[in-house]
Amino acid sequence: MKFVCMGGSARRALTFAKLLAREFGYDDREVLAYGDTERYSLYKVGPVISVSHGIGIPSLSILLNEMTKLLISAKAQNPVYIRMGTSGGIGVEPGTVVLTTESISPKLTPVFEQTVMGETRYYPTLLTQNLNDEIYQLRNQLPVTMGKTFSTNSFYEEQMRSDGLFNPSFSNSEKLEFLHKLYEMGVRNIEMESLALSAFCLQAEIPVAVACVTLLDRLKGDQVLASKEELLDYSNRSHQLILSYIKSKIENGAM
Amino acid sequence: MKFVCMGGSARRALTFAKLLAREFGYDDREVLAYGDTERYSLYKVGPVISVSHGIGIPSLSILLNEMTKLLISAKAQNPVYIRMGTSGGIGVEPGTVVLTTESISPKLTPVFEQTVMGETRYYPTLLTQNLNDEIYQLRNQLPVTMGKTFSTNSFYEEQMRSDGLFNPSFSNSEKLEFLHKLYEMGVRNIEMESLALSAFCLQAEIPVAVACVTLLDRLKGDQVLASKEELLDYSNRSHQLILSYIKSKIENGAM
Repeated sequence: MKFVCMGGSARRALTFAKLLAREFGYDDREVLAYGDTERYSLYKVGPVISVSHGIGIPSLSILLNEMTKLLISAKAQNPVYIRMGTSGGIGVEPGTVVLTTESISPKLTPVFEQTVMGETRYYPTLLTQNLNDEIYQLRNQLPVTMGKTFSTNSFYEEQMRSDGLFNPSFSNSEKLEFLHKLYEMGVRNIEMESLALSAFCLQAEIPVAVACVTLLDRLKGDQVLASKEELLDYSNRSHQLILSYIKSKIENGAM
Repeated sequence: MKFVCMGGSARRALTFAKLLAREFGYDDREVLAYGDTERYSLYKVGPVISVSHGIGIPSLSILLNEMTKLLISAKAQNPVYIRMGTSGGIGVEPGTVVLTTESISPKLTPVFEQTVMGETRYYPTLLTQNLNDEIYQLRNQLPVTMGKTFSTNSFYEEQMRSDGLFNPSFSNSEKLEFLHKLYEMGVRNIEMESLALSAFCLQAEIPVAVACVTLLDRLKGDQVLASKEELLDYSNRSHQLILSYIKSKIENGAM
């Protein structure tokens, strides 16, 4: 086992597992989840684990602890962790895959916080630069960019959406000013997991990348305007990119 | 629609929906999820919605926004939100259902924090006292207690478990000292959602209760020692308690 590919939903984990199976010449109807699927769904296809982590940092953090302990027990050598998902874009065309260089917290710092026994601890959130470079070189015709990722603990409130339950406490122009400020800081997309994933992998010394496609440009609005077919195409782009990376590593004899 | 009953996993949402169906005299094989189940699973049985919220506050917070907007569109009158789940106990017998009176953050304050546009906001986390009183009166033979709930953003690190990936940065006696301090503050269990649920419902003026059963007593260790059968029995206790409450409301003509 060499590559751990993660995404939010069980459906995405299965979709990617089937893509891998077809690529490796297996019958994709034989792709079955390992173990219990009450909390997470895990598939193993050749040297790749495809697994769901749920929504947000708390759900992800349990998976990271438990899966990494399993890999250590299984004596897996030098695994690489890659998260694929969707995100809101900032100043990039919808459908762009953003490779995260560094994750930025809601407090606008590249820091993940955990409070243990009442004491807050701070962890850096850099992603693995040479892994990003390797993946970026394989982008081929896909729209791929590198940038920072704003990583929040809520989808509506902390991402300043105007279509949550509560009326926003800010004007549209204040929101746009803030989004432009994020852009100036080098942020190109917004999601909900990379802050903890990067911090965990730095601590555990595991190379890690986050490749999330953008579904909209938040500088232009809060609603996704792409059609169902476009969204499916967008969603597949991070899979295609990471599949190219995995194939290139296998062909270059990294296995 | 009157009662929204939530739990972490899709499986729990279905189990509770089937329990309701049998209680209301429906064929429980006809209990089907509404809509897409990629992120959450939602069932409607009579006046009750049984829905999964995933693990942790970020996942829960998306559900709360989207479901509450739906209920408002559907002109639901005076809904009550109830979370049922499992938890780690502090100083109570495993199998005790804890009704949360107030939720306590990892920073040891009854406060939920959100950072919007770089500015941190603070929300109170009281649960609905008279709802707790009504539920408590229906405990019958079940072991039920009221107490504060320590609500964290991770299962391993912030809950001071010694069996995560990283070696804990504290000794066992420091951990026990901290858990005893929580007990002295009135905390009786630990979970990962009540902090945001209580804050959201206070803001939205929705009565809310959290009834989580404890699977172990953290003052005695980090490992669950109950058998599979005992755990199933424990897990059903919050369902039984909340079912009693819903039946009593229906019988008293609250519908």
